[in-house]
Amino acid sequence: MKLIIDLGNTRVKVAVFEEDNLEQFFVFSKEEFLEKIKSFSFKKKITHCIVSSVGNLSIEEEKEIRELYNPIFLTNQTKVPFTNLYKTPKTLGVDRIALASAAIQKYSKQNVLVIDAGTCITFDFISKQDEYLGGAISPGIQMRYKALHNFTAKLPLLESGEFTDFIGFDTESSMHSGVLNGVCNEIDGVINQYSKKFQDLTVVLTGGDTNFLAKQLKSVIFAHPNFVLEGLHTILNYNLAND
Amino acid sequence: MKLIIDLGNTRVKVAVFEEDNLEQFFVFSKEEFLEKIKSFSFKKKITHCIVSSVGNLSIEEEKEIRELYNPIFLTNQTKVPFTNLYKTPKTLGVDRIALASAAIQKYSKQNVLVIDAGTCITFDFISKQDEYLGGAISPGIQMRYKALHNFTAKLPLLESGEFTDFIGFDTESSMHSGVLNGVCNEIDGVINQYSKKFQDLTVVLTGGDTNFLAKQLKSVIFAHPNFVLEGLHTILNYNLAND
Repeated sequence: MKLIIDLGNTRVKVAVFEEDNLEQFFVFSKEEFLEKIKSFSFKKKITHCIVSSVGNLSIEEEKEIRELYNPIFLTNQTKVPFTNLYKTPKTLGVDRIALASAAIQKYSKQNVLVIDAGTCITFDFISKQDEYLGGAISPGIQMRYKALHNFTAKLPLLESGEFTDFIGFDTESSMHSGVLNGVCNEIDGVINQYSKKFQDLTVVLTGGDTNFLAKQLKSVIFAHPNFVLEGLHTILNYNLAND
Repeated sequence: MKLIIDLGNTRVKVAVFEEDNLEQFFVFSKEEFLEKIKSFSFKKKITHCIVSSVGNLSIEEEKEIRELYNPIFLTNQTKVPFTNLYKTPKTLGVDRIALASAAIQKYSKQNVLVIDAGTCITFDFISKQDEYLGGAISPGIQMRYKALHNFTAKLPLLESGEFTDFIGFDTESSMHSGVLNGVCNEIDGVINQYSKKFQDLTVVLTGGDTNFLAKQLKSVIFAHPNFVLEGLHTILNYNLAND
């Protein structure tokens, strides 16, 4: 069984794959994930493991994971199944490396735009020549609510809410419109830009806000809530096959 | 001569109007503005003054301004030249009250969308019946850069920069695309929503990022960099006439 650990900016996702099937899936807080994994009894032995971290893993935590599972720690040096045309490949975030790998695996020889709506909203484009070109990094939905509160004198801190009309009629509905309707217009606009430049574009939506956005966006998209995990599994398999 | 003081979240704008002409205009930091105004010798006596504050003015500062200029402090109780249909009129920010007043003065009997691109990007709609309906509040350009840095583990703090391609090719150009291209798509999308709902829409762009956005947006807009100040002047005149 293969263990996949994705340490994000706010949460840790852990998946267990048996052959190519996702068998188990957990989401933990950063503080608790290591204790939780250690205390968990897997159905079979973990034979291979990959760890991706965009946050800061302490030296102790890293050491402990190494001793437990002898994992591949994903870096920009890890072998991946695509050509990286990013001008500074060493600075390409591990989450975006995983997304590009998943795109290659699921939508090989297609022009794919992957939109990961989590802490940040990342856009990543992979050409039908299996080349990673780059994309964009924009603030995510929760980050926008947090910014409106933290960086102004008077706006409240809101949780993501419903919005029924783009014309907000009080402070809260104005903020919901500004964040939620704003993000939808931004994403639809970016998808249009890529569609104009690249024929037969496939758009993949993933990340924590997948369900909300899948309902709201005008564009046709494929929703894959766990695309990063699938990409990490792809990278792990690629490295086992090419070892 | 009339003195207009607009205390924003980060800067203080001060304008002097003689009749209906903007004669002098200054931008100060919050810390220095009061000393600067006090030390300044105006050409003629200041006869009337209005103060709008979205930030926090200390009790001492407020007292000092009262003693110097006996101003109108703009609140949601101040008489304004439009009908406020906001469901919670008491919570409508003073900057948005000023923008609506400027729209009525400059584009009377028109459907007007005012976009103020400053610390926040606010959208405000005023109908051709001179009714304020509401709008949206979204994070501004600088706020997005700040959020990407402050609320993630690894992204740098960038200043607003140039972006040449919406496909960012390294961390910095990805962030510029995410923020700048993102904001443009968001604003163009919102303008389209209003255009579909309201015929003959006039779009006004104001705030610190007016110059950048005026060049980038696809939509036709009228740029008025000092629309809040013009609105405050309108409110001051309206109150003097209806006193």
